[in-house]
Amino acid sequence: MRSITVDLGERSYPIYIGSGLLQSIGERCTEAGFAQRSPLLVVSDTEVAPRYLEQVETSLRSSGYTVVSHVIQAGEASKSLAVYEEVITTAIQGGLDRSSAVLALGGGVVGDLAGFVAASYMRGIGFMQIPTTILAHDSSVGGKVAVNHPLAKNMLGAFYQPSMVLYDLDTLATLPPRQVASGLAEVVKHGLILDREFAYWCQGHAEELLALDPEALGYALERGCAIKAEVIGGDEREHGQRAILNLGHTIGHAIEAVGGYGTFLHGEAIAIGMAGSALLAAKLGRDRQIYEDTVSMLTALSLPTRLPSQYSGEELMEAMMHDKKFKEGRMTFIVPEAIGEVSIISDVQASDVSEVIAQLKKEGSPW
Amino acid sequence: MRSITVDLGERSYPIYIGSGLLQSIGERCTEAGFAQRSPLLVVSDTEVAPRYLEQVETSLRSSGYTVVSHVIQAGEASKSLAVYEEVITTAIQGGLDRSSAVLALGGGVVGDLAGFVAASYMRGIGFMQIPTTILAHDSSVGGKVAVNHPLAKNMLGAFYQPSMVLYDLDTLATLPPRQVASGLAEVVKHGLILDREFAYWCQGHAEELLALDPEALGYALERGCAIKAEVIGGDEREHGQRAILNLGHTIGHAIEAVGGYGTFLHGEAIAIGMAGSALLAAKLGRDRQIYEDTVSMLTALSLPTRLPSQYSGEELMEAMMHDKKFKEGRMTFIVPEAIGEVSIISDVQASDVSEVIAQLKKEGSPW
Ligand SMILES: NC(=O)c1ccc[n+]([C@@H]2O[C@H](COP(=O)([O-])OP(=O)(O)OC[C@H]3O[C@@H](n4cnc5c(N)ncnc54)[C@H](O)[C@@H]3O)[C@@H](O)[C@H]2O)c1
Ligand SMILES: NC(=O)c1ccc[n+]([C@@H]2O[C@H](COP(=O)([O-])OP(=O)(O)OC[C@H]3O[C@@H](n4cnc5c(N)ncnc54)[C@H](O)[C@@H]3O)[C@@H](O)[C@H]2O)c1
Ligand SMILES: [Zn+2]
Ligand SMILES: [Zn+2]
Repeated sequence: MRSITVDLGERSYPIYIGSGLLQSIGERCTEAGFAQRSPLLVVSDTEVAPRYLEQVETSLRSSGYTVVSHVIQAGEASKSLAVYEEVITTAIQGGLDRSSAVLALGGGVVGDLAGFVAASYMRGIGFMQIPTTILAHDSSVGGKVAVNHPLAKNMLGAFYQPSMVLYDLDTLATLPPRQVASGLAEVVKHGLILDREFAYWCQGHAEELLALDPEALGYALERGCAIKAEVIGGDEREHGQRAILNLGHTIGHAIEAVGGYGTFLHGEAIAIGMAGSALLAAKLGRDRQIYEDTVSMLTALSLPTRLPSQYSGEELMEAMMHDKKFKEGRMTFIVPEAIGEVSIISDVQASDVSEVIAQLKKEGSPW
Repeated sequence: MRSITVDLGERSYPIYIGSGLLQSIGERCTEAGFAQRSPLLVVSDTEVAPRYLEQVETSLRSSGYTVVSHVIQAGEASKSLAVYEEVITTAIQGGLDRSSAVLALGGGVVGDLAGFVAASYMRGIGFMQIPTTILAHDSSVGGKVAVNHPLAKNMLGAFYQPSMVLYDLDTLATLPPRQVASGLAEVVKHGLILDREFAYWCQGHAEELLALDPEALGYALERGCAIKAEVIGGDEREHGQRAILNLGHTIGHAIEAVGGYGTFLHGEAIAIGMAGSALLAAKLGRDRQIYEDTVSMLTALSLPTRLPSQYSGEELMEAMMHDKKFKEGRMTFIVPEAIGEVSIISDVQASDVSEVIAQLKKEGSPW
């Protein structure tokens, strides 16, 4: 088992990564300090619950916990206020009290939604992340929790750290291939922002990663989580440096919003966004090779890097206006300086972004 | 102008209490650090907005702010997820960004709702409280923000401190008499928990307070805010001592839930609850005189201390089970030891509470 600590003073917590961890979840809850007397709420979705929920409930019960479960419809559409309210109703009816905890068993959708439930139920109760997707190596670490508003993604949320992240790699075996690639987009993102060597390593091990080779995957997820933990350890509430984690996300979120949540998967959308950031870098005078290398890496990982022509540039720009990285009237972008190094540029002009969108839609070479 | 500081380290903030403060709200927003470039959202209600919103908007605009306003229907029913979502929609459409702030212009309903909007919009933006009720001397200080769930009050919320509390006493002139008395319930509560002399002072100045005499009212609100600030300064997130502020609230919240929010006003419900706590104290062996004195004080302030017979004891008990002060299977109550002194008792038996409810419904003397 690999273990990483997220260092946030009194809010510090461990990430455990390994095989067979679901069996010991009851004991982990005790280690995390959750009281046996108070019911636990497990939130999961219609894809994950049939495969793993029973195992989790059994382990919890054998450690003396009372368990209430709530299974949401799989997919981004469930990250809504309406579903949030349904989960809250289950929590109240299940008798959750101030010493209770919420366990998120699933991918980023379950994690973000269940996290906002934990953050706001009685003004905050216990919380544990049990990620079951590759993408969730990112979403389960760092305490950003949220639901979407029809007008904008992740609009309602909190910074709310879990007490523990328990990452059982065995669960990844049932993940559909497109979801595997989507998750690897965030893995390679961690290389692209801070670790050149790791980024090229991902490209070199793309086949093993896509085939879920345990050794390669364990290393990649550990390294991805460690980079994320390092960044948020220095800036928990995104007053500055944490924003580098948003590489590719301004354009990516706009693609998700315009296409309708779920048309492109999150990782696919940010892969296109990362290609866009590299184009923007070139426009701002950085080496075109950054774009070429970024695209090679993403392509090796079976990820898209171009935008289908039916996407309207105007609608995408409009969606970015609503995005939260739009601060005090100017646009902030994370722009690569090289592979493994990025800058936060806060006065990017809308016209440049508009041109990048057009380039992403062009057939063949963008230049 | 009177001024008090709530001492919470980097989350410290001032409370200003005085006359004519609404005129200077624009400058106060600048003092609070709100950026002129980012729109401000003023949340108010249908009673308060026609009287005071224009003044506020004018002051803000003359200080260079863009202002978006959202007026909710007056009353507790607006502290709901549905109304929360409407306010959020206004915020998004008004272009609020991460440097924006929400201003709560109204009583506790507006403050609690707007506070949860501020706490969760883009995971937290700026927040200022502009209380316009006496009760809100309590609700605007301390950072507890929330909306109700149909099954339980204040179920969804956060701890989220404002950057400033601006209390313009002139606004209280238009407050209906029943609301005045309701607010005074929380004022005298602050005496009952921590300041014997102040509690008797409230009783002695009941007529001036009910008549909104500026000198008496200014002193009472300053002292009330100061006691609240002192308590939360020592325990921001209610891990322990802060719970004493809940004197009368376990029974009070149950009365509000069972009667339908709004039948009894919040202050009226907790007045009955405080009488109940004093009865519970007698049941646990404390002096009966505490009950007699508590009832005299509340009666002097035109507050109810008995429960109408149509309230079902069973329904009230059921509502308390859902209440958040019901921790790990046992019931916690704040119980007076004397006027001006309370204990947190965490193993109160349900049967004793049940008997207290019956006593509160008995005609004549409860003994
Ligand atoms: N909080 C953060 O910091 C953060 C960071 C990145 C992404 N996110 C959010 O995460 C979400 C995307 O996460 P995701 O990609 O994990 O999406 P997801 O939770 O929707 O999971 C993807 C799909 O895989 C299914 N699935 C999950 N685990 C499975 C398993 N083990 N076997 C079979 N199927 C399984 C799910 O049911 C779903 O259909 C987005 O909402 C995004 O905004 C949040
Ligand atoms: N957050 C906390 O710590 C805390 C503490 C105590 C109470 N509360 C909450 O506060 C709420 C009660 O607050 P409240 O009593 O202020 O209720 P309120 O906000 O509903 O105001 C009472 C009534 O007076 C009207 N009003 C307000 N100001 C007025 C003015 N200046 N002139 C004329 N009318 C005016 C309102 O429109 C409303 O009809 C409850 O929801 C309670 O749960 C919260
Ligand atoms: Zn992401
Ligand atoms: Zn109260």
